[in-house]
Amino acid sequence: MAINPQYEAVGKGFVQQYYAIFDDPANRANVVNFYSTTDSFMTFEGHQIQGAPKILEKVQSLSFQKINRIITTIDSQPTFDGGVLINVLGRLQCDEDPPHSYSQVFLLKANAGSFFVAHDIFRLNIHNSA
Amino acid sequence: MAINPQYEAVGKGFVQQYYAIFDDPANRANVVNFYSTTDSFMTFEGHQIQGAPKILEKVQSLSFQKINRIITTIDSQPTFDGGVLINVLGRLQCDEDPPHSYSQVFLLKANAGSFFVAHDIFRLNIHNSA
Repeated sequence: MAINPQYEAVGKGFVQQYYAIFDDPANRANVVNFYSTTDSFMTFEGHQIQGAPKILEKVQSLSFQKINRIITTIDSQPTFDGGVLINVLGRLQCDEDPPHSYSQVFLLKANAGSFFVAHDIFRLNIHNSA
Repeated sequence: MAINPQYEAVGKGFVQQYYAIFDDPANRANVVNFYSTTDSFMTFEGHQIQGAPKILEKVQSLSFQKINRIITTIDSQPTFDGGVLINVLGRLQCDEDPPHSYSQVFLLKANAGSFFVAHDIFRLNIHNSA
């Protein structure tokens, strides 16, 4: 498989689509459909889990409802197996908490004409955690 | 190729080794040895380049000498082809500039018993850029 020349559009499109689902409390659990049953890794605030069932459990354990999100930058790179590496930086506010900056890395893998999230690394509050 | 069970140690070890070279002005240009001549991507503050020669050019164009670096978090994940995905968050101060927070993502690929940097995404000043 070769580089996907649309990697920039794929990255931006994925991020929009993913957060549209994640940020809607009634819909949030459906982000699980972006992950593989066995082959997806998520590291959430330093805690690593593997596979869609555990990722769903994690997502469902999040207690906030409303999310206010501002995306600052999306950097995408193509991988040689047709995937896309994405680095998202932004700010988010959960319910009435103060806003925090955050970092999220996604590695999308191509699969049967579509993509799944093979890797997901999330860190909140990135400039205060020193 | 399978998952490298040492991915956590590989990630931490790589980050230490990489920055030890990068942060030494007399040695900085040698980071080029971590990249492939053709198959490495670097996105530096949104500007994307490919291949070790262009990456060297970029590194040599950086005007600061002294770097004061504090690493806040290193999150590593194994890839199924024996590589390691690394997300580094930290703060750095170049010469007498004020300190900035930064984000750097590396995707290491396994190659002949060693690793090279296939992907490198760097962003400075991540919480002020909104």
